[in-house]
Amino acid sequence: MSSVRYCVNGKLVSGVAPTNRGFAYGDGIFRTMRLLNGELQDWPLHYQTLVADCSKINIVCPSAELLMQEFKHLMASAEDADLSSGIVKVIITRGDGARGYAPPAICEPTRVLIHSALPVYPTNIYDVGVALYTCQTRLASQPLLAGIKHLNRLENVLARAELKDPRFFDGVLRDYEDHVIEAVSGNLFIHKDGLVMTPALEQCGVAGVMRQKILDWYKTQGQTVVSTSLLMENLLTADAVVVANSVYGVLQVTQIDEQVIASNHWAKQLRSALAYVVH
Amino acid sequence: MSSVRYCVNGKLVSGVAPTNRGFAYGDGIFRTMRLLNGELQDWPLHYQTLVADCSKINIVCPSAELLMQEFKHLMASAEDADLSSGIVKVIITRGDGARGYAPPAICEPTRVLIHSALPVYPTNIYDVGVALYTCQTRLASQPLLAGIKHLNRLENVLARAELKDPRFFDGVLRDYEDHVIEAVSGNLFIHKDGLVMTPALEQCGVAGVMRQKILDWYKTQGQTVVSTSLLMENLLTADAVVVANSVYGVLQVTQIDEQVIASNHWAKQLRSALAYVVH
Repeated sequence: MSSVRYCVNGKLVSGVAPTNRGFAYGDGIFRTMRLLNGELQDWPLHYQTLVADCSKINIVCPSAELLMQEFKHLMASAEDADLSSGIVKVIITRGDGARGYAPPAICEPTRVLIHSALPVYPTNIYDVGVALYTCQTRLASQPLLAGIKHLNRLENVLARAELKDPRFFDGVLRDYEDHVIEAVSGNLFIHKDGLVMTPALEQCGVAGVMRQKILDWYKTQGQTVVSTSLLMENLLTADAVVVANSVYGVLQVTQIDEQVIASNHWAKQLRSALAYVVH
Repeated sequence: MSSVRYCVNGKLVSGVAPTNRGFAYGDGIFRTMRLLNGELQDWPLHYQTLVADCSKINIVCPSAELLMQEFKHLMASAEDADLSSGIVKVIITRGDGARGYAPPAICEPTRVLIHSALPVYPTNIYDVGVALYTCQTRLASQPLLAGIKHLNRLENVLARAELKDPRFFDGVLRDYEDHVIEAVSGNLFIHKDGLVMTPALEQCGVAGVMRQKILDWYKTQGQTVVSTSLLMENLLTADAVVVANSVYGVLQVTQIDEQVIASNHWAKQLRSALAYVVH
């Protein structure tokens, strides 16, 4: 934990008030991004997503200038450590509140920036790919919150706790109608008969920034990614499956539970197309 | 906000780390109780509920002795204020975590106790009763988390934000199948043809401690409260409706949206039966 650094509302303080609505109700949003050579990767897209997510739960997102200023302050704080690479998590909450679900009349959003080291992944995830397991934990359908990376993430916590077998890198989450939605910590894409598809996120799930980058890249290639209902059998019979997030980029899925998935170099091609620098 | 006092893990510190899993993911639970003449009302039942809720998401609840010790520490801290009455909120989170949904191998639960003044309610809520509005925000069905007072409360925040008309005291929450589940900040009971009913909470909603007290009291009277599927029309055609939580006790519901509800002295009788001391 000593390697984690943070600042709250621009100050290198020891914490957030327990009356903060982010703590009290999960009343806020976040995004996690990669830091490479001192630069926040895809910051414009991340900021655009922070603004959109805030807007969906009626929080006015702080300005990009303010967040950038606080990011620089956090970076400058590290005299004894190299903060030029790693992970930065930006959390925006509705602000400090009194008791009760209604926010105070004046409620200034809270900004939290957290720097931590890059996660230590198993070796060869880029060369060999990863195996996923099928979670028993299901996602509830809540269109009001679908797609948003909000702070109400108990479902992900419960699903992640299922992962005890070290062979598996992450889990596949389904809703209660058996639709595949996402991985616990990433978005899924499948390739089938020349078509690229990704689970629809109208009912639940998080629309990740790496997912958006993949959608945008296909658009520049004049190809449409179909956002649609997918079942486990669609994954298991796909020509290829990849999982994507802003930290590890894009990874080939080579196995789901005990079943081997048809594999190719799709993840590698996507990383290359997106100019993702592997760890 | 200056009237709010708190302690975190027994210390009167300025906050919780933003890496606390309660803040990061809403990975924890809470209960709010009334403080009267220096005594936490219904503490044994509240503690039992904290233990049960923790258990459902695999957190080991800190001991009652530890929480009581920290409560006394918080009370003793107030040289300049009278903390003998008001509201105490107890929050238990899975503890401090690094990045990612998986908790560290050793994760000590975090205890937070917050004292705040009694809310200022409209006058006459005990004599006249209250009006409720029907929320447009729906509750998602998630049996894994139903009943638990966890820290993932964005739905309640969105629902509470709908309440702009000061005539209404609280809102009625339904699931996506039109079942009435609860009020935003309390549980509902209806009286119909001699039968007492309350919405089933198997799919969503919070099982409040005051709700449990009411269920327990009816049991001592040899009467069963039926926990069942209820629709808005069941509320609107009931002989009486009450709303209950641990802070305001039990209140008569006299109106839902623009419709007047049959009213009697049920709430008053329940408050008396439960020895609830009105504010």
